[in-house]
Amino acid sequence: MLVRLDRGARLPLYVQIRQQLRELILSGALPPESRLPATRDLSRALGVNRTTVIAAYRQLWSAGLVEGRAGGGTVVTAATPSQPVSQDAAPGPLVWDTRYTSRLQSFHAARIFRLVQQASPEVIRFCLGVPPDGRTPVHVARDVLEEAVPKGMSVLQNAPYKGIDELRSLIAKRAELIGIHAVASEVLVLSGRDQGISLLAQALLDAGDNLAMEVPASPGAVHLFHSFGASICSVPMDEEGPRLDVLEGVLAHRRPKLLYVAPTFHNPTGATLDLEHRRALLDLCHRYRTPLLEEDAYHDLRYDGTAVTPLKALDRYNHVLYLSTYSETFFPGLPLAWLIGPKEVIERLESLQACMDETPSALAQHVIYGFLRREIDEARRVVAHYASRRDAMCAALDKYCRELIDWRRPDGGFFVWGHLEGNLKSELVLREALREKVAFLPGSAFFPNGDGGENELRLDFAGQPEDRIEQGIRRLGVALRRSLDQKFPHHGRPLSVKERDPAPFGMLPQGLRPNL
Amino acid sequence: MLVRLDRGARLPLYVQIRQQLRELILSGALPPESRLPATRDLSRALGVNRTTVIAAYRQLWSAGLVEGRAGGGTVVTAATPSQPVSQDAAPGPLVWDTRYTSRLQSFHAARIFRLVQQASPEVIRFCLGVPPDGRTPVHVARDVLEEAVPKGMSVLQNAPYKGIDELRSLIAKRAELIGIHAVASEVLVLSGRDQGISLLAQALLDAGDNLAMEVPASPGAVHLFHSFGASICSVPMDEEGPRLDVLEGVLAHRRPKLLYVAPTFHNPTGATLDLEHRRALLDLCHRYRTPLLEEDAYHDLRYDGTAVTPLKALDRYNHVLYLSTYSETFFPGLPLAWLIGPKEVIERLESLQACMDETPSALAQHVIYGFLRREIDEARRVVAHYASRRDAMCAALDKYCRELIDWRRPDGGFFVWGHLEGNLKSELVLREALREKVAFLPGSAFFPNGDGGENELRLDFAGQPEDRIEQGIRRLGVALRRSLDQKFPHHGRPLSVKERDPAPFGMLPQGLRPNL
Repeated sequence: MLVRLDRGARLPLYVQIRQQLRELILSGALPPESRLPATRDLSRALGVNRTTVIAAYRQLWSAGLVEGRAGGGTVVTAATPSQPVSQDAAPGPLVWDTRYTSRLQSFHAARIFRLVQQASPEVIRFCLGVPPDGRTPVHVARDVLEEAVPKGMSVLQNAPYKGIDELRSLIAKRAELIGIHAVASEVLVLSGRDQGISLLAQALLDAGDNLAMEVPASPGAVHLFHSFGASICSVPMDEEGPRLDVLEGVLAHRRPKLLYVAPTFHNPTGATLDLEHRRALLDLCHRYRTPLLEEDAYHDLRYDGTAVTPLKALDRYNHVLYLSTYSETFFPGLPLAWLIGPKEVIERLESLQACMDETPSALAQHVIYGFLRREIDEARRVVAHYASRRDAMCAALDKYCRELIDWRRPDGGFFVWGHLEGNLKSELVLREALREKVAFLPGSAFFPNGDGGENELRLDFAGQPEDRIEQGIRRLGVALRRSLDQKFPHHGRPLSVKERDPAPFGMLPQGLRPNL
Repeated sequence: MLVRLDRGARLPLYVQIRQQLRELILSGALPPESRLPATRDLSRALGVNRTTVIAAYRQLWSAGLVEGRAGGGTVVTAATPSQPVSQDAAPGPLVWDTRYTSRLQSFHAARIFRLVQQASPEVIRFCLGVPPDGRTPVHVARDVLEEAVPKGMSVLQNAPYKGIDELRSLIAKRAELIGIHAVASEVLVLSGRDQGISLLAQALLDAGDNLAMEVPASPGAVHLFHSFGASICSVPMDEEGPRLDVLEGVLAHRRPKLLYVAPTFHNPTGATLDLEHRRALLDLCHRYRTPLLEEDAYHDLRYDGTAVTPLKALDRYNHVLYLSTYSETFFPGLPLAWLIGPKEVIERLESLQACMDETPSALAQHVIYGFLRREIDEARRVVAHYASRRDAMCAALDKYCRELIDWRRPDGGFFVWGHLEGNLKSELVLREALREKVAFLPGSAFFPNGDGGENELRLDFAGQPEDRIEQGIRRLGVALRRSLDQKFPHHGRPLSVKERDPAPFGMLPQGLRPNL
């Protein structure tokens, strides 16, 4: 008999069976491909319930020692782990460098961020997506806290998953002002923009599903979508926004599960899609029945001109999910965002959020609520403040980088996007710039896999006071001139390039790549 | 000639070429498989630069209208989108219900959460992973805010990505007290446990990579790992923790990129792995060179016995990443967590975090910092508070659910895990319980795909005051008795089941499933 049971032992019978069979297999007494007795036979022979034998076999299977065969029966697996400790698997410190995903290894933007982060502190960094200084309407927060904290604990307690009711109602009410008709049940409060993207990716994108997005785009969003297994279909932008001819091709042929756009003061280009193109874009989504995620973090930061209606407000067919936040504009210290969408989607996402631990902080919710209630004057003050930084940067670019960078004045948001003259590569210029103690993000950081934007750069004016902006752009001008001198040492600097690539922003795909 | 250029027109030449070719293709004048002229020939014929023609072709390719052929040349694609607006694609409201991922559709725990959420407000819910009432050390937060807010803005400003230096140092220093040797540069501050899981999934798990985890497990963690494309290798638990024989099989055969465990006051079982098993588990990870994520959210909530050293403290080979938080215990309103790991991993994750927008709130960081500085007494008070809730639940279970539920007293944490006698199905009992106005989470919520734990339930005692606990468990007893009466209407309630499934916790896989 293969197995011998000790009915007086403390060990359950199924464990005894499992252990003895395991020994037989590992010792080689039961070699690979040998067949175990049928469970019915073994249970009868041992005088135990058949489920006991099944339990033992199941565990052997779990341990990889046996496997089922199509014709029935259970055999010892070919590769038994009898010698798990081979020489090269001996314990020793883990070499983490070999453990990172290929996605992380090829995450170009993260490499650039690291380079810039590690630069010395005197470097003037035009690459902070969020303002680090003291111009946020902090006194509003202070008022809210001073009112709320002594009164009770609710601001320090757990908030409902989808957000505090009053805040959701107020967000819905304020959305009306920009043409979006929504009620509280169509609003989900989030712990940040990326939570919105994560939840939507979890809800709408199975691994391998296509996602359409304009490029260049926010590196964080690209990476997140990538990480959730989405296959990204890039839609290049030109001066008018995402190219609708390409988008139509993508929608028709790739059938993406979601289109992601940031039509207002786009990161990184600063561009805003006009009303006509918004309608055309929405029309395509309607025709191809494609859900659309509209990110609108900078809506309130308009310095010139009049607001363009959000896609969400133009959407008659419930295709648009609208994602906004103040964490990048008014309250960088308080991670909070909101999603407005069809009630059924919000409910789905809410039950997903309930299984996660990232409920947005009640404290942050109360501060944002307090801010929204008295916002008008506060917002105006903050907007004026950023506008003067935008002006300072534009003036400095005119003064110090004329004929070195081709850029255009953004009507709002945080970013100036520029094209380097003389076919200069912005990553190389960054190295020169860091020597001059100024930093920016090269355009390649905003292209999936870094395969575009090589002559472009993004300058973020929000994070620096006006005098630092002037000083930093002056340094940038020096770095650019030096780069040109190095590139054209004998002939002097060339004239500004007249005959350029047909897409002046250099945003065309760099070749016929499979990911479009 | 195919194409006719208007040199006086406002449209760039490449756009004219593209548009005219597009018309020809869509109209059928250039049928599928017909070959476009070579770029060289067309440019010569039109008298334009060859790059102009290439740009036009590239855009046609982007739009899916043409494709390159291996032997060179460009042909019209077989399926041109000439009739994109078919009858069934006419604009109309989007039917969102058809848009969710199969992962979301099969996210069993989210369905259960929704059921419980939608129950009436009088229901006593033993299913809140976080305490919603007023026992958090709120006055600490108030002190911190009262000190910090009038003084300056830093608490309301953007914090450094990896966390405020003082907080990182203090976390490292406090980790020493439980045997973990770390310095500030080995600490990453996070906006929550799930951000830690997300970053690690992004860094370590490519789509399709295997992840090993004990089951049952936190549904949020399971779903997150799933969503990032990980293939989950379940390691069932018995009374001693994750089954090491199965784990060895998994490590040997499935080569997971990461093992995820919560060895202390495990959610949902409340179990704590003893030191011997910790060493054995770590030994396996060392032998198979598998990185290990140790979640330790409940470490400080020990009510009886002495602390068991964390895996991180036992790890000599840098395999362990240690994830902890106070958001589930002391400060539910402040989402914050931290990861302790090798410096090189922390740096990698930091540059990933820098590309996202979910920097943990500076305000939350300051509050947690203030709490950690004066923690000892505070923590003791909170722990005593939860201990008395644990006692209340155990007493009530003894009183009202004797012979109905097989459970054991947890030494800490938030959860009692129980096995229903009489082979009752916990999901069916939940329906009965909701009628009695009490709720819990059925065991199936904690198994990937809900394929296990059908006779189990989790009772969370943290979220209810003692009198509500007694009342709720009394209701649960009623619901259980009624369920038994319905199941055994003629013979009365059976004796408590003696001959059970060999694994008393019912945690064995329910069959030979491919995901182990």
